[in-house]
Amino acid sequence: MSFNAGVVGASGYTGAELLRLLAGHGDIDVSVVTADSNAGKQVADIFPSLAGAYAGTELVPFSAEAVAGLDIVFFALPHGESQRFVPLVIDQVAHVVDLAADFRLPADSYAEWYGHEHTAPAFIDRFAFGLPELFRTEIETAQHVAAPGCYPTASSLALAPLLADGLVEPTGITVSAVSGVSGRGRGLATPGLFSEANENVVAYGLLHHRHTAEIEFALSHVAGRAVQVLFTPHLVPMTRGIHSTCVATPAVGGLSTASLLARYRDYYADEAFVFVLDEPPATKSVLASNAVQLTVRFDERTNSVLALGVIDNLTKGASGQALQAANMLLGLPEAEGLSAVGVVP
Amino acid sequence: MSFNAGVVGASGYTGAELLRLLAGHGDIDVSVVTADSNAGKQVADIFPSLAGAYAGTELVPFSAEAVAGLDIVFFALPHGESQRFVPLVIDQVAHVVDLAADFRLPADSYAEWYGHEHTAPAFIDRFAFGLPELFRTEIETAQHVAAPGCYPTASSLALAPLLADGLVEPTGITVSAVSGVSGRGRGLATPGLFSEANENVVAYGLLHHRHTAEIEFALSHVAGRAVQVLFTPHLVPMTRGIHSTCVATPAVGGLSTASLLARYRDYYADEAFVFVLDEPPATKSVLASNAVQLTVRFDERTNSVLALGVIDNLTKGASGQALQAANMLLGLPEAEGLSAVGVVP
Amino acid sequence: MSFNAGVVGASGYTGAELLRLLAGHGDIDVSVVTADSNAGKQVADIFPSLAGAYAGTELVPFSAEAVAGLDIVFFALPHGESQRFVPLVIDQVAHVVDLAADFRLPADSYAEWYGHEHTAPAFIDRFAFGLPELFRTEIETAQHVAAPGCYPTASSLALAPLLADGLVEPTGITVSAVSGVSGRGRGLATPGLFSEANENVVAYGLLHHRHTAEIEFALSHVAGRAVQVLFTPHLVPMTRGIHSTCVATPAVGGLSTASLLARYRDYYADEAFVFVLDEPPATKSVLASNAVQLTVRFDERTNSVLALGVIDNLTKGASGQALQAANMLLGLPEAEGLSAVGVVP
Amino acid sequence: MSFNAGVVGASGYTGAELLRLLAGHGDIDVSVVTADSNAGKQVADIFPSLAGAYAGTELVPFSAEAVAGLDIVFFALPHGESQRFVPLVIDQVAHVVDLAADFRLPADSYAEWYGHEHTAPAFIDRFAFGLPELFRTEIETAQHVAAPGCYPTASSLALAPLLADGLVEPTGITVSAVSGVSGRGRGLATPGLFSEANENVVAYGLLHHRHTAEIEFALSHVAGRAVQVLFTPHLVPMTRGIHSTCVATPAVGGLSTASLLARYRDYYADEAFVFVLDEPPATKSVLASNAVQLTVRFDERTNSVLALGVIDNLTKGASGQALQAANMLLGLPEAEGLSAVGVVP
Repeated sequence: MSFNAGVVGASGYTGAELLRLLAGHGDIDVSVVTADSNAGKQVADIFPSLAGAYAGTELVPFSAEAVAGLDIVFFALPHGESQRFVPLVIDQVAHVVDLAADFRLPADSYAEWYGHEHTAPAFIDRFAFGLPELFRTEIETAQHVAAPGCYPTASSLALAPLLADGLVEPTGITVSAVSGVSGRGRGLATPGLFSEANENVVAYGLLHHRHTAEIEFALSHVAGRAVQVLFTPHLVPMTRGIHSTCVATPAVGGLSTASLLARYRDYYADEAFVFVLDEPPATKSVLASNAVQLTVRFDERTNSVLALGVIDNLTKGASGQALQAANMLLGLPEAEGLSAVGVVP
Repeated sequence: MSFNAGVVGASGYTGAELLRLLAGHGDIDVSVVTADSNAGKQVADIFPSLAGAYAGTELVPFSAEAVAGLDIVFFALPHGESQRFVPLVIDQVAHVVDLAADFRLPADSYAEWYGHEHTAPAFIDRFAFGLPELFRTEIETAQHVAAPGCYPTASSLALAPLLADGLVEPTGITVSAVSGVSGRGRGLATPGLFSEANENVVAYGLLHHRHTAEIEFALSHVAGRAVQVLFTPHLVPMTRGIHSTCVATPAVGGLSTASLLARYRDYYADEAFVFVLDEPPATKSVLASNAVQLTVRFDERTNSVLALGVIDNLTKGASGQALQAANMLLGLPEAEGLSAVGVVP
Repeated sequence: MSFNAGVVGASGYTGAELLRLLAGHGDIDVSVVTADSNAGKQVADIFPSLAGAYAGTELVPFSAEAVAGLDIVFFALPHGESQRFVPLVIDQVAHVVDLAADFRLPADSYAEWYGHEHTAPAFIDRFAFGLPELFRTEIETAQHVAAPGCYPTASSLALAPLLADGLVEPTGITVSAVSGVSGRGRGLATPGLFSEANENVVAYGLLHHRHTAEIEFALSHVAGRAVQVLFTPHLVPMTRGIHSTCVATPAVGGLSTASLLARYRDYYADEAFVFVLDEPPATKSVLASNAVQLTVRFDERTNSVLALGVIDNLTKGASGQALQAANMLLGLPEAEGLSAVGVVP
Repeated sequence: MSFNAGVVGASGYTGAELLRLLAGHGDIDVSVVTADSNAGKQVADIFPSLAGAYAGTELVPFSAEAVAGLDIVFFALPHGESQRFVPLVIDQVAHVVDLAADFRLPADSYAEWYGHEHTAPAFIDRFAFGLPELFRTEIETAQHVAAPGCYPTASSLALAPLLADGLVEPTGITVSAVSGVSGRGRGLATPGLFSEANENVVAYGLLHHRHTAEIEFALSHVAGRAVQVLFTPHLVPMTRGIHSTCVATPAVGGLSTASLLARYRDYYADEAFVFVLDEPPATKSVLASNAVQLTVRFDERTNSVLALGVIDNLTKGASGQALQAANMLLGLPEAEGLSAVGVVP
């Protein structure tokens, strides 16, 4: 059987990535694709890469009518817009998967980190936090999903086994992560220009990057108590990829790299997309795939635990994870339409 | 039903790309993977990107026994090695697809462009030139296929409609093409280092690049008479992609860009992987896909025809094309396991 | 002695490059730096790279008064703006060097290639075409200079020795060139984004790119008769650099690669910035320098001459060349403040 | 007056960078350039970028005789070779500046981090640790200098003001740093290939990277007591640049970002190459320059201090710093021949 899907906001990168993935999905048909400023154009006009799968598909303006009745609607809008538009359609479609930050956090946390009140707080509870490996039960029992951000996905999965078992302290955790430039989206701004971003590494969002809240939310859920993280993101000159370097302080004695690796392998034993490696993971290994690759070390010298994780920010960090959650909402195999194999080289 | 395949030479980039593509192919099982210097290791040790599909698959040393009886064997060895090894197994397997340059050209042409005699000339005739769009009949009636090079694929497809119809002169054609660095392969050499190739464009193989012979071979086949090309390749700082810029002199009057675009669309109307665009094609649009994107212009001012073509050098320019041909040899749908959608951004 | 200079339009890339070069020039002091939208900020706010040389230098709005009386004023504005502003100040300063396209071409040629009439045609004759190696006499006797574009610089210097001596036909010349993305400038547009330009090659301005007119202008000057070129530019994923690949048809017999190389070395024997190499030149070798590197080949097989040239588009292709011309206007050593050594790796 | 210099090991990247910088130095002449495997070739054969400054300079094999009597000899050999060759010449030249790791650390620390005994321990004390901003007195009173590594330079300068004043704890410090690929040098190895390093971020040297010892050595010197650091380096897809992200725990109360920034500005007030910015520093801003750019933050939420530093790994992180120290040894102005302006874009 086949489900009808809508993609709202298809002229951005997460929208394009959704369309790329859905082109290879056997049980979901893309019925409606919206893009306000580009409405009237064809998908292949905006992304010639999609010509092979969406010949003739026209972008229509978003409206509740346009998507009403669909089995699932993906919102791939800039952050802040979903809280305006989701309420208009949420009761007219079977499932919503939101890729923005709008429905990931509790209203008070949202207000604290985003600096303004949420405009549709009553809807937040209807969304599960869409990180399947850590919130599978929640997603399975939810009707709608808010897919988490790219940095939170990589960082939370890298640290979760440590916190789930109380192996490290819940405070004093540092996360230094780097992202490919596509994480900035397709909007026009000087730092996103090739001539600015190429041959350049620069940190941003110091101390207060909003993804901190999601990392702490996910890890607190896993730990069963409040987790606090100092998160420092950086832009690096590549298009896709997140690499998260996490350091935590042991809360128990007797740790070793071997025992931690074993613990990680056990923790993720049933996961289709998580791979625990002996060697440091490379972002390139997961390019264009939904895979997560992790490793972990215990440093006796400084009494620290070092955990590393990589994902593709647009796939596992956005559209792939959204599709993984959508499969769950629709009762399809969780991995359908998703590859765990990266494009290398 | 399912066919058993072997991949000979899996520690190089075309081998890795074959394994990536075959991981998503429903009717071909990878039974044997060889790699001499890396024999004994696992596929995922060499390419962690493949961990999600080849867990536990071990690389074995090449031998005739190792591949005997397989339905199809892909040779992804460095140029020159196939003529040593193919004769040992060609009669013990149903089909061979060679990705090297060894069986693409007639023996005399091979000797002229490669500077030495072919060591297995008697086997050359058993291979069809594996460019399906231009040699479909030959492939369909062949038992074995020699997949053409990356530059010849992009350049021949960009120029073929012009020469098939006698619209341009068969001499005085210039092809200026650029390639991503993966076209150099995975061998160690200074020009392949990141610090040398990054932020750098340099031409190489001036006047005598061996792919000239394949371009001329393919286009002469299409034109029905000898075609001569001055081909200048360049390395550019990207991993994948070929862009071919071709200029030819009209042989007939009355040309226009509109009529040429129409002619191209007609010529490739039945092709699953060829897309004729109004706008200049971008290599990124075909990244990791088997697609070819083309456009064409008539310049009245200089009385020239300009044809542009892009492919991914490792997919349509190597392993994807090899799989496309393999599908034909095995009687499978030509596009099975191959995507026409590029990874963008 | 020391001259006072103004830089008009310092928030773009050619302005920044001028400031970088002038920081190391012993006889020119930067007295005035203008940048309308960024006026009031400091140079180091816009370009922290310049903090070491322009601490405290404030950007002021452009006005005739601001630059009146200066020894030399560099206009680094977007194309089209110089013809508005240069007339306001040209008689109040000793010398103007314009980096835009506004005063490079005769008025009729400008109108033809730019699609609109020049708004200050009376001023064009007061500017020499600022390519010192080919227009030295004109620059030495001029008061003002219009520095040529990046593609015309690389392409004209690559072809000039052939046309100066009548060695090739003046028609049927093809130039296929690639540029780093900084050639697009610092303006915001989707194709300039890292995520669009990275891992991508795409042609643009097919048949009608405006630099065609400058290449033809410069080469016609050298040849003493009309030269016609089909010019195809491409964007490649690097920040700086131009590589120009030129093919022409011999007009005389008896050519050889050796004789052509010797001819090139002789033609440029007195030039400080032109280097004729035996091997293909690499854009990286001239990075951030004012050098031009060239090579040339005769192909007997196709009866063609192949000429290759590389420059840094922002240095020799813009601000370095502007400074080279400024030195000439001011009676300073032509190479002062300019390096012929590239930043490698 | 002019000093005669030798560059030992000029076919690697630090050698090439030294030659680039020395080409613009008014008081040092390069008299001897050695390169064993490339001996007999010309400098411009290996690095065409240097053709403009070293026309005709031939590479000679290294020998004590070749450099005897020189005023200064730079050793730009792979780590481990200097301890073999420096003893042969150190008493026959006025000054040695070693760019390798051989004479940076005390013999016991060297043995601990490098895994084998130092073969010329008696010579170590004759070298000052060549980080002028932190070891100026030592350099001024030394005859020879061991220039520190790239990561230690960026990381130590980013953290020094905190430790000099006892503002942070000497333990529990984490340094997560990224380097451009040129930091690997010019040797051939698969991870250095463009197709491996491009679009890729990967950590390496987990827990035990040898630069840890230098960071701890420099900071312990500054702090006056033992400092311990967990250092995690990563390779990112750019050619040049180091970005160091450091987190430490306050040892005193009452910190604020404003007071820390003021402290940093005061600490480095007399330094020509250190710039303290309000905004996060970008590696690109220091490209090809000897500048260091820093910022610092106090995070009240997690009670942490975050310090960021950037350098060009080949200039301030190697050859530029070596030249800065050489100027000091020779009694020249410390900044001579060195630029504080980066190549942007």
